[in-house]
This record gives sequence, C-alpha cells and structure tokens, in this order.
Amino acid sequence: MQKTIYVINPNSNPVVTAGIETAIARLRVAGGPAIECLTLAAGPLGIQSQYDVESVVLPLLELTRKLQPTAAAIVLACFSDPGLHAVREAMAQPAPMPVPVLGICESAALTALSMGGRFGVIAIMPTSIPRHLRNWGTMGILDRLAGEESIGMSVAELATGASTLERMIAAGQRLRDVKGADVIIMGCAGMAQFRAPLEQALGIPVVEPSQAATAMALGRALLHWHGGV
Amino acid sequence: MQKTIYVINPNSNPVVTAGIETAIARLRVAGGPAIECLTLAAGPLGIQSQYDVESVVLPLLELTRKLQPTAAAIVLACFSDPGLHAVREAMAQPAPMPVPVLGICESAALTALSMGGRFGVIAIMPTSIPRHLRNWGTMGILDRLAGEESIGMSVAELATGASTLERMIAAGQRLRDVKGADVIIMGCAGMAQFRAPLEQALGIPVVEPSQAATAMALGRALLHWHGGV
Amino acid sequence: MQKTIYVINPNSNPVVTAGIETAIARLRVAGGPAIECLTLAAGPLGIQSQYDVESVVLPLLELTRKLQPTAAAIVLACFSDPGLHAVREAMAQPAPMPVPVLGICESAALTALSMGGRFGVIAIMPTSIPRHLRNWGTMGILDRLAGEESIGMSVAELATGASTLERMIAAGQRLRDVKGADVIIMGCAGMAQFRAPLEQALGIPVVEPSQAATAMALGRALLHWHGGV
Amino acid sequence: MQKTIYVINPNSNPVVTAGIETAIARLRVAGGPAIECLTLAAGPLGIQSQYDVESVVLPLLELTRKLQPTAAAIVLACFSDPGLHAVREAMAQPAPMPVPVLGICESAALTALSMGGRFGVIAIMPTSIPRHLRNWGTMGILDRLAGEESIGMSVAELATGASTLERMIAAGQRLRDVKGADVIIMGCAGMAQFRAPLEQALGIPVVEPSQAATAMALGRALLHWHGGV
Amino acid sequence: MQKTIYVINPNSNPVVTAGIETAIARLRVAGGPAIECLTLAAGPLGIQSQYDVESVVLPLLELTRKLQPTAAAIVLACFSDPGLHAVREAMAQPAPMPVPVLGICESAALTALSMGGRFGVIAIMPTSIPRHLRNWGTMGILDRLAGEESIGMSVAELATGASTLERMIAAGQRLRDVKGADVIIMGCAGMAQFRAPLEQALGIPVVEPSQAATAMALGRALLHWHGGV
Amino acid sequence: MQKTIYVINPNSNPVVTAGIETAIARLRVAGGPAIECLTLAAGPLGIQSQYDVESVVLPLLELTRKLQPTAAAIVLACFSDPGLHAVREAMAQPAPMPVPVLGICESAALTALSMGGRFGVIAIMPTSIPRHLRNWGTMGILDRLAGEESIGMSVAELATGASTLERMIAAGQRLRDVKGADVIIMGCAGMAQFRAPLEQALGIPVVEPSQAATAMALGRALLHWHGGV
Repeated sequence: MQKTIYVINPNSNPVVTAGIETAIARLRVAGGPAIECLTLAAGPLGIQSQYDVESVVLPLLELTRKLQPTAAAIVLACFSDPGLHAVREAMAQPAPMPVPVLGICESAALTALSMGGRFGVIAIMPTSIPRHLRNWGTMGILDRLAGEESIGMSVAELATGASTLERMIAAGQRLRDVKGADVIIMGCAGMAQFRAPLEQALGIPVVEPSQAATAMALGRALLHWHGGV
Repeated sequence: MQKTIYVINPNSNPVVTAGIETAIARLRVAGGPAIECLTLAAGPLGIQSQYDVESVVLPLLELTRKLQPTAAAIVLACFSDPGLHAVREAMAQPAPMPVPVLGICESAALTALSMGGRFGVIAIMPTSIPRHLRNWGTMGILDRLAGEESIGMSVAELATGASTLERMIAAGQRLRDVKGADVIIMGCAGMAQFRAPLEQALGIPVVEPSQAATAMALGRALLHWHGGV
Repeated sequence: MQKTIYVINPNSNPVVTAGIETAIARLRVAGGPAIECLTLAAGPLGIQSQYDVESVVLPLLELTRKLQPTAAAIVLACFSDPGLHAVREAMAQPAPMPVPVLGICESAALTALSMGGRFGVIAIMPTSIPRHLRNWGTMGILDRLAGEESIGMSVAELATGASTLERMIAAGQRLRDVKGADVIIMGCAGMAQFRAPLEQALGIPVVEPSQAATAMALGRALLHWHGGV
Repeated sequence: MQKTIYVINPNSNPVVTAGIETAIARLRVAGGPAIECLTLAAGPLGIQSQYDVESVVLPLLELTRKLQPTAAAIVLACFSDPGLHAVREAMAQPAPMPVPVLGICESAALTALSMGGRFGVIAIMPTSIPRHLRNWGTMGILDRLAGEESIGMSVAELATGASTLERMIAAGQRLRDVKGADVIIMGCAGMAQFRAPLEQALGIPVVEPSQAATAMALGRALLHWHGGV
Repeated sequence: MQKTIYVINPNSNPVVTAGIETAIARLRVAGGPAIECLTLAAGPLGIQSQYDVESVVLPLLELTRKLQPTAAAIVLACFSDPGLHAVREAMAQPAPMPVPVLGICESAALTALSMGGRFGVIAIMPTSIPRHLRNWGTMGILDRLAGEESIGMSVAELATGASTLERMIAAGQRLRDVKGADVIIMGCAGMAQFRAPLEQALGIPVVEPSQAATAMALGRALLHWHGGV
Repeated sequence: MQKTIYVINPNSNPVVTAGIETAIARLRVAGGPAIECLTLAAGPLGIQSQYDVESVVLPLLELTRKLQPTAAAIVLACFSDPGLHAVREAMAQPAPMPVPVLGICESAALTALSMGGRFGVIAIMPTSIPRHLRNWGTMGILDRLAGEESIGMSVAELATGASTLERMIAAGQRLRDVKGADVIIMGCAGMAQFRAPLEQALGIPVVEPSQAATAMALGRALLHWHGGV
C-alpha cells in the first residue's frame, strides 16, 4: 500500500490550509509518497495564544492515531509545534509501524541552520516571541538566533491584510540590518504565500516552515527512517 | 534541462562511493532530480587527518564549479565537511544560478536533532573527535551532544574489517547507556552499509550522514530553494 | 477576603496529594495565606508519559479559572509542569486580579541554584529524562545541570515500593560522586516523603519540588507580586 | 528559641536600610520568623566599585558569625552579593547549626526567571554592568538576560535625586522595547521604594531584589532547609 | 642553535607585512628568540573570501614544514586563521621537534578576554562577519562577544584609504556604545598601524591581533611549551 | 626607569613562592623587564577555602598599590585569582600609569584554549572544584571544559607529599581518558615543579598557571598594553 505524508493544519482556517497546499505542491513527485493536507476541524481559526496551542493537542493525537496505519509521515503545520513530543510518542509505538513526525517550527530552524549563520524570525504577534524563545532554548540553538520581530497581525489578518507583505519586509529588514540575520524564517504557516516576494525583497534566503517540514518528511519517508520520540 | 544532485565523495576510495550509492538509492524517485555519486579523483583514500581535509578543498571547488551549470544541489559526502563554506560561497554566485550545498556532517546533525534529544557520534579515530567537537561548536549545538566514541579504525579498514559492526555496536551502546544518547550519528561516510544492523542492535535511531544530506538536498532541489553562503 | 494558595496535584492519586500535604505543612503560618492541596479528579493516576502531561492541561485550566477569584497563588504540583505557560496566561488576565503561578519543576531548579553549584535530578523513569532535559533547555540552565539518574519506578510504585528510598539513595550517590552534583532535586511530587532520609544519606541538600514551589508562592502572595506570563 | 532572618545592608547608609525595611515589611507574619534589618557599620555609604565590594566581605563574615546562633537565615542586601560564597561557607558549619544564606542579586534573578522569559536589569552606574555580567555568567543564566541599562546615579543620589524614577522608567522602557525584556530587575537595594510606580509605568513585572531574597529566606526558614555552600 | 619565531603573513601584500613588522618590533628582545616576518608569496593580495582562506592553506603547510627545523614558534598572521589546525597537526610531529602554532584571531580573542568583559570586533567587510562568528562558536566564547561592525573596506584599501581610521573609530564607538564592548579587537592584520590612535579615540583597550599572537608565541618559545594539535 | 613584573604569591608559604620562582625563570630575558616574585606576608599558608580567598584581597590591594609606580605588570599567583577585578580596577587608575594585571587561573585557561580542544583541571581539594566551576562560568568558557579531578591534598602537603606526582598523574589520566581532556591545567601554584614529569607521563600538554600568566604579563609589558578593568 502506498503511504501518505499527512500535513495537518492544526487551525481550522481553510485559507491557511490552502496556502500550505500551494506551498508544498512541488514536493509531490511521481515516485514519492502521496502528500495530503488536512485541516483540524476542532482547531481554532488561528493559534495565537498558549491556550490555542494546548487546545489542539488532544485532537491532534486523536487524528494522528487514526492516520497512523496509512501514514508515511506526519507534519504538524503550526509554528508553535503543538503536541510535537506527544504525537511523536504516540507514533513511535510499533503497531502497525512507527511513523516520523515533524513540526514546522523545529524543521524550519533546522533547515535555516544550513542556509545561513544567524536566523531571524518574523512573528505574527509580540506575544508569540516568548513562546518561540522557549522553543529555541528547548532546541539548544539560541546561539544561532539573530532575533525576532513581530508584525502585529493575527493569523486571520495575514491573508487579507493588504499590508502584510509590506510589514513582513520591514520586519525582515530590521532582522537583517539591525540584528544581523542572514536567513529569515517566516514564523507562521499562514505566511506561506509571501515567501517568494519576501526573499526577493530581502536578498537573503527565506524559509517557509511547512515546506521545510514537508521536505524533511519526504526524505524520512523515502528512506524509511522512523526516528525516535 | 533536468538537473542533477551531485553527491561527491571527497576521498578517492570507490568502495566508499559504492556504499554511498547504495545508501542514497531510495532517494531517486520518478519525478525527482537525478542523483549522481562521484568520486573525487584527487582525494586521498580516506580523509582522516586535518591535512587530508585541507587537501581536498581546492579540488572540490574546481569540480563543483564544473558541475554548477547542471547541478540541482551539491552534497559533500565526507564527515569533515571539507570546504563546505567555500563551496557554498562559490555556488552562491548568481551565474548561471545559485546551487544549494549540503555537508553530510552538518546535515546529519540537523536531522538527528529532529529524531532525539541528545545525539551521540561514532567516530572512526580518536583524532577525529576534536575536529567534530569544533564543528558542533561552530554549529552552536553542543548542548544537544551526548558525546562521541571512536572505534579506532581507518576509513580503509571500515569496509573490510570483520569487527567493524561489532565495534560500532559497542561504541553505540556506550553512547546510549553511559552518555545518554537517544539518537546515533555514524561519523563517516564509509560506515553507510552498517546503518540498519546498528539501528536494530541499539534500538534507537541511527543517522547515516550521506542519506541525511541527500534527503535535504532533494527537498531543496524540489523547492528550488538555493539558500545562502 | 483571605485568599488561598492552591497546590494542585495534577494526577488523581490521593496518596501523592497526601504526601504533598505533609510536605508543605510547615509553610502554613499564622498571618499567612491559607494553603489548600487539591487533587485533579480528571488526571491519570500518575503522569509518566507526554500524553499524560498533555491530558491534564485543559482540566487544569478549567480548575484554575474557577479558583482564580479566591487564589493568592497557584502551584502546579507535577514535575512535568503541565500547562505552566497556559495557566500563567490565563491567570494573568486582570479580572478579577492576576494570580502568580508556580510550577514545581521550575521552582525546584530555581531553588537548587541557590543551594549548590551543580544540580542532579532523580527521575522516576528513564523516559522522564528527555522531557526534563527539554525543560532545562527551555529554562536556559543546562550549564548548571550535573546530570539525571532514574530509579525505574512508576509514580504509583514510589509510595509502596519497599526499595524506593534505597534506589533514590543509589541514584543520588551516582549523581554526587560520578556526575558532580552538590544539590539534588527529587524529580517527582510523589517522592516528597523521602526528602529528609535522602538528604541525611547523601550529606548534600535535597530539594523537594512541591515545597520549593509553595515557598515561592508564599513569598509572591505576601508581597502581592503577580508576575508575568 | 524563635530565630530571626537577618537582612544585612552591607553599606552604612541608613536611608538604604530604611528602604529595605519598608520593602520587606509584608514578609513579617505572625507565625513566621522575626525579620531584622541591619546596617553594616563598617561598610561604605554606597557599594559602587569592586573595591567597595571587597571591603565589606570580612566585616560581613564577622557580623554573620556573631548572628549565626540566632539566625534563621541571612540575606546579604547588596546587589553585588559581596562575599556570598564566603558567608555560605561560614554558615554551613554544623555548630550550632547551618544557616541558609541568600544574596539579593542571585535571588532577584532566580525570582525573575519565574516571572518572564527574558530579564532586563536597571543598573546604577555603567561600571556596575560588567560586574553584573560576570555574575550572570557565574550563575549560568546569560541566555535569559535581555540586557542592562544604567541610570548613571550613585547609591547616595538614588534616594534624593528628583529624577531617579524618571530615569528608571526610561531605562526600563529601553530594556522592554529595544532589548526585549518582559521582566525587570532593579539592580540596587537603594531602588526599593520605586518598585510599585516603576511596575505601573512599564506594565511588566518588576523584581525588587531585597524582597526577592527575603521571600526565599522565609521559605527556607519555615522549611528548615539549610542548603549548601 | 638560536631558534626563530616566524610570523607569516598569508597574503602576498608587503605593505601588510611591513605593518606587522612594525607592530611586533617591541617583542624582539635581547635574550629572546629572533622574530622574523615573512610574506607568503603564493597568497592573494588580501584574504577576504572563504576561497582566499582555503587557497593559502597548502602553501602555508609547505612553508611551515620548511621552517620547522629552525622554528621556535609559528604565527599565522591573518585574522581568518587559515589552516590553523592543519599547521598545528603538522608542527606537532616530533621530528625534529614539536613547534607551537598561534593564529592571530584566536590569540587576539584570548588576549581580549583578559582585558575586558565583552569584546567587539572591527571587521573589514560585512562578509567577514559570518566567518568570524563561526570561529567564536568553534572557540566556545560567544557569551563574551559584544558584537561585530564592519568598515566596508578591502585589505588593500585599508592602508591607503584616507578614511580608514575614521571608519574604525566610528565602528568602535558603535561597538562600545550600542553593543556594550569594553575591549576592541581589530579584525585584520592590515589594521596594525591604527591601534594607538584607535585606542586613544575610544578610551578602551584595543587588541592588535598580530601583536597578541606574537606575544603568546614569545611566551611559548621562552618556556619551551610546544602545545597540542 | 626599568619596570618590573611583580609575581605575587598571595599565600605566605615561601616554598610555593620558590616553586613559582623556578617556574618563571625562563621568562627573564636580558632585554625584557625584571621579574620579581613576592610572598604576601599577610596571606595564609595555603588558599584553600573561600575565606582564604577573601582574606587576601585587601592586603593584595595594599601591596599592589605600593608596587604600582614601578610595576610593568602584576601577576596574582593563586589559582583562585583572589581580588583579580579589584586589583585591575585599582591598577587602571591613570596615575602614575595603568598597569596590566593577570590572574593565573584566567591566564592558564586562556593559554590552554590555544593548546587543545577541551581542558581538564587537576584541583587540590574537592571543595576547590565548585569555586573553579564558578570561574569558568564567569569567563564564559564552560563549553571547553572537559572536567576537573581533585587529588585531595592541601597546598602544604603538595610539596612534601611523596605521592603528589603519582596522584596528579592518576587525576590527569582520568581527565584524559574518561573526560576527554587533551590539555591539562594544574590547578594550584604549588604544583609548579611537577609540570614536566606530568606532561611526560600524560603525553598531552600541561599548563603551569604561573608560567602562563607571567608569559602573558611579559607580552603586555613589552607591548605597553595596559588593558582594562
């Protein structure tokens, strides 16, 4: 049976899922696994608070347990990596078969570390930044962080706000010019559509996190590497 | 024109190249880029000293400059990542087009960070360890290192030594049980053939570095992400 | 109205709550706030897996929201600090009044840092250790960690196992003699009863985490310091 | 015999001692230990240079040895934590009984780590900052430091300077807005009276170090935890 | 036989060698070893790219092997420390005798750490900075780095540019005032002549790297300490 | 006037001073500054406790102030670097002229960082180790520390104990073989006489701290570099 990489948007916003869908399209290749983007029906419209993060963990566990028999890999497509270690723990069980689990925040950072010396992060809200900083500490990669800048927009506003790209460029410029970043991570799955123009405007590499994680998932799926907890 | 991921073995040992060839075979997929494994004719039989590392840098630059017009990505398949930043610098030039460059040491570590909490490294020689430690420091990921253990064999001995796997398992057990590693990196491209039995013996994930780097290269190639210096 | 420090045992094991009750008794003083120990009815019998951790977060949020009007402070008395940042976020809301929230893992470490140069941790299960390490990374205090040793017992077994203290002493000796710890943290609220004999056996300070957190909560309550998210 | 927490101001400025006295008043509770604030007669009017720090160490040792028989805990109330480890060493002797020793700088930082993600410090003089940085390095918590800003006033000027609060607010705003602090530490015992208005002006938690240390001392005294060197 | 400290300028620019010659003159003392400054004929006019760095490694190895029989110590006088570990490896061989090898970047940093709390670096080009940052990571001293500022001049322009000193002072002021440096490292051997006026303008210590390394070499030569790889 | 490097033994043990005298003899060169070894009369026979450290600070300040007019540099020859920052502060005053101040612990570490990848330290007493660890934290170089081992001897016993060298070799072997040190620091000025045999027994570089600091002082004196606080 052909297995599938499931890319799960933990918020219930179909516009965000559609953006992820477009972003990862190039990773679908004839000889590779299927890649399916799903929306977590139980999720909030945007994951912006710590509460939002916690609220999707059990639903994600329930969904991923159902997907496990047909899963080549699981991608959790929210930049807060909600439930990452719990889903890994669940998917590590050997029956029917362990499944690799990638978080888009972790994967974006690991990818950025191969593209520049110091990474900068464009966050949606100022309140996102302490959460991100805790994560870089957990990952042990703070020495490579140039800094973070927020654009002050909710997940919902990202798509529709006329000024989204403009604000992202301004944030990216501060990260590049003031804080010394030479690679930029877009800190929200909802920013996916802006990768190309942002990279062009800044002249340094820009990592779209859902692409980063799905690419890692593709490698793991092809290699049959299931990984640990 | 279909482009190619070039996986370059910087030593001139065709046995090592053949092992890499086998290891990355699964990453060749219909619809994906071609993947070609090359042996650097100018390289020594094994890269074991700092001199060996330095001796291959200019030849690697010369070779990669020739490959650039047809390259989807370049993988430097020696665990010392010889010339990584120089090759990146050369391949970042915009004519004809920037090419992503992955080192197998860097890529192995970045992959391991998504598979466990603390990584252990099986080194070939005791003298390899200080070189690796410098690299983990450069990468800023020392907090995630459990430790290193060497098996005391040259690159050439790896393939033929009857006791290679046995020594690798013993080293892996020390890393897992004494130093607390929950993911293992094989610290030499010449160890590729031992990944599966080693993983089975240890019961924790084992990262084969050429696979890790080629998988990352595949993602970069499919996404047309060229990355920085 | 006299307010209360609520010390919440997120598992549903009344034996553990009773042990906490005994441990924090000395912190009830005339003129100070009331201190009440609660058991989270919705919790599992012991919090041992990442799933267990995640499963109690929403129930903890629901309970603490109810307690907020009468709370002087909240102590989350599980060494995984489940939901710590979500509860802080919820309790930071100004109506009726922000409430300080302490996690026993974080508080134990902060207290240990004032009692010795390098802290060692006695964990219940080997699988607890990676979770703890992530937390020390999040807190940015890995340079002060001597190491961790597990005793291989579930939360339920702790209380009844005849060999619990014996194993804890052996683990503490390894932390002290091999890994260089000069202060020990007991890595589970269910170990509370063993603090005194363990300290006597080891001859170095031993931190009981529920005591550490409740003591910090007492200070915060008396000072009317509500703290941040 | 009822024991006493001694809060020692190592400078000889009674205005500073009076400020500490007011600050810690809420920590005196009917059922708790007595808390007595003392002024070190031998100290300089303000501790501003490294010489000042060193000059009070032996007098502090002499004083604390005298206080030991009646001490529940000792608080060294100068932000340079003068002689902290020497006093701990002296008070750890078992006759008549080991006494916990808290420094206000160390305690302020440990408290701040439970109140925010990154702490900023308001220093009195620019020359204070390198001394503080050495201390954060000693404590191993530099990853949590947002930065320091000085107000350019001596200890003596703090109390009387009409512009003290104004300068502290400006420094706090730079720490919050430019350097990303979400919790502020007041870097001098002589700033105690400004905690409430500063916190109100900044809208993020502000730690007064003498309060932080005395609160920790209270917990240690109630729990009969004597701690290490 | 009287041995000689060889200070090798890896670029082929005699103006730079002359500057080094002047800078280290005071380290020639009666009773001490001879000190000879050499220009690597095979080097480029300035070492500015990663390619430039790599291009001089084998020529440096060849030259130092020739010098070994008469060498008291070797100083590699380029701020990129090209081939440092390879030359150390070569010079550690016991025949005729191991020779200490110092790089001016490493030595400048080690010296600066004894002269201030946080060091700032004046780089020639913006592209030099990521290379330097990798080196501070390799050395494990990033916690002591205040920051880097570039003056945007090539090695060749340094000597002749009328505005060189002016730009260095401006960079030094930003490092001191904005980034908190209290000691400055001049990040290129070609800046040697500007040490005194720069130090006078900034009022904080300025480290000239060739002097720093040659001074360390002098100590090693006098003590007959040969050191490791 | 010819100035003098003063190497001050802060303990009052003339045997230790004599050992330092012998150790630094090679650094006296015809054209260099005089080097004079002094014994601090007010010091204890050995500096072993934190109290011992603190007790010599003011006497050292008094002595160094007297020496300042004729000092080319000051070396504080106790491995606890007592009063290092206070003496630096005092000697930085511009009248008559700033004088560089080196501590032997700091200098030994900075020297070791140029001789190996990970340094190990042989401490006299187990209680010395936490003090050293605080210092490596202050210096920000913990990532380069392999570990410490004590030999359980007082300063006084070092010289006379028949087993001193034997214990040092055993400690050095544990540091090299178990903890991965490739350079060893002797953690007491009183060990000076054992450098050569220890280095021969271990086969890796051994740093004698008084030599390391005096060598750095010689460089600073010759270069007229006065340095910072």
